[in-house]
Amino acid sequence: MFFEGSEKKVEVITAAEAGSLRSRGKEFWSGVVAKAQAEILTTLSNDYCDAYLLSESSLFVWEDRFLMLTCGTTTLADAFLYFLEHVADEHILFASFQRKNEYQSHLQKTSFQEDMDRIQSELKGTAFLLGSLDSHHNYIFHLDRPYQPAANDQTSELLMYHIKGEGAQYLRGEGQTIEGIRKLLRLDEILPGFELSDWLFEPFGYSLNAIKGDRYATFHITPQEESSYVSFETNLNLEDTAILEKLLEALRPGSWDLIGFNAPAPLRENGEFSCLTECLLPLKCGYDMSFNHYQHKEQRSVQAVELTG
Amino acid sequence: MFFEGSEKKVEVITAAEAGSLRSRGKEFWSGVVAKAQAEILTTLSNDYCDAYLLSESSLFVWEDRFLMLTCGTTTLADAFLYFLEHVADEHILFASFQRKNEYQSHLQKTSFQEDMDRIQSELKGTAFLLGSLDSHHNYIFHLDRPYQPAANDQTSELLMYHIKGEGAQYLRGEGQTIEGIRKLLRLDEILPGFELSDWLFEPFGYSLNAIKGDRYATFHITPQEESSYVSFETNLNLEDTAILEKLLEALRPGSWDLIGFNAPAPLRENGEFSCLTECLLPLKCGYDMSFNHYQHKEQRSVQAVELTG
Repeated sequence: MFFEGSEKKVEVITAAEAGSLRSRGKEFWSGVVAKAQAEILTTLSNDYCDAYLLSESSLFVWEDRFLMLTCGTTTLADAFLYFLEHVADEHILFASFQRKNEYQSHLQKTSFQEDMDRIQSELKGTAFLLGSLDSHHNYIFHLDRPYQPAANDQTSELLMYHIKGEGAQYLRGEGQTIEGIRKLLRLDEILPGFELSDWLFEPFGYSLNAIKGDRYATFHITPQEESSYVSFETNLNLEDTAILEKLLEALRPGSWDLIGFNAPAPLRENGEFSCLTECLLPLKCGYDMSFNHYQHKEQRSVQAVELTG
Repeated sequence: MFFEGSEKKVEVITAAEAGSLRSRGKEFWSGVVAKAQAEILTTLSNDYCDAYLLSESSLFVWEDRFLMLTCGTTTLADAFLYFLEHVADEHILFASFQRKNEYQSHLQKTSFQEDMDRIQSELKGTAFLLGSLDSHHNYIFHLDRPYQPAANDQTSELLMYHIKGEGAQYLRGEGQTIEGIRKLLRLDEILPGFELSDWLFEPFGYSLNAIKGDRYATFHITPQEESSYVSFETNLNLEDTAILEKLLEALRPGSWDLIGFNAPAPLRENGEFSCLTECLLPLKCGYDMSFNHYQHKEQRSVQAVELTG
């Protein structure tokens, strides 16, 4: 029942000369998604953004930028390279490609190094490892080009591993409903006024896209015991909200990563959990990137798992 | 300069009917070692044991048992399967195959699952994961056959990652000597009276086999920055010795695993380091196995590493 929930992510910002990315239409974006071995399940649109829920995660397209997340053993680098064939290099203002901490990186079709080598042949950039190679870490490649993000251009990624308790049991059990999961995630409190598009997978697993104006949020839940993973990502300003704390309370992860791009300070430690890794990197493309890895004290005592052939 | 120091390990105990394993001679054991893509560098013998230092780690052969460790991208499962061709299944009293926590498991030629599937086709056994898949962990396969270890049959493995400080600098620098490394490891204090055979690799890296009666100890040092790894393994009883503490003091690892088979209790936490994972498993083959993962507080703050294509 192993499934690699952790995602690869690509984000691109284009110049006005590239034309509207939204107006390239669903057919174009379906083609991009197909290159990653995924497909579009739902579409949600407002004045700013088209949010596509995918068979493996999400794609958000604004006029001048897109971001795409794909999990499992999808080949997001292929989708990125396909997009690059359809835009002039000089019209790209910013581009990044990330790989989040994988449970079983040897089961992936390519390594980050291989992805990076292929991307570098099209786009000159720099790549970094944040965190420790033998603990949680994050890989990022970004285009070597100065960029000046707007003041409200920030991203927070909360990546939760080993969810526990009643919420986890509900997500793993039979008979979950979309309403039940929305309630568990307290969406009415954390994303008030957002339009939602979500999907319940069989036998379990859940994805959500949410948009409000030019703000977005997305959830992807892989509840499988031994390799559970829940990601939450948003461009909301999380300062003065208790969103992160509410999600930790609802899902009780044994460990989690918090990644920020020009985003507010990470969670404060308390008696319940510790910060094991902190890594800060001002990227030359204009974003200050932070990577923090946390572990809950409940995660210390681990049962051995019998493996089957 | 990446090198995977962490080892795979096989250990086998045979019945008297299998004959003396030592008397199979160096030619036979060279053949076993070659199957793992390694070769014998030195031989050290006493009344009980032949200790072979390998191009990638170590092989110890007693009359009725052997243990072999190999690092890098060696194929120890092949060596194990080759050995199994040369002994009757019913003459094997105990067999185990371990894989230690790898920095970059996707660079290995096979996964533990693949190794296990091949071994299982020759030897019916059970396999476990101890620790968390997304943190340090240890894989073990063992033969499904009851075995009663002797009272002094215990093994401790101390696996150190991210070594720091003067010791680490010396090991990474130019002009190390065997004498300098022996002094750094305080071998005269921790292994008094042992016969030693050691090897300094180019441009750095160090291996040591040590024997005294039927007791053994072995060190393997991969000092490379970003992926440093030092393993120490012994069948000495470590209760009432300060060996572990002395090694942690000399090498200042950022994190480490302590694995025991019928071995004394793990290190006590203190203000300097925490135990992040503890996992206990009574194996049905007669050994109580413990896996403990520790992190030093110095390991929390990590610098991002730029990757090259």
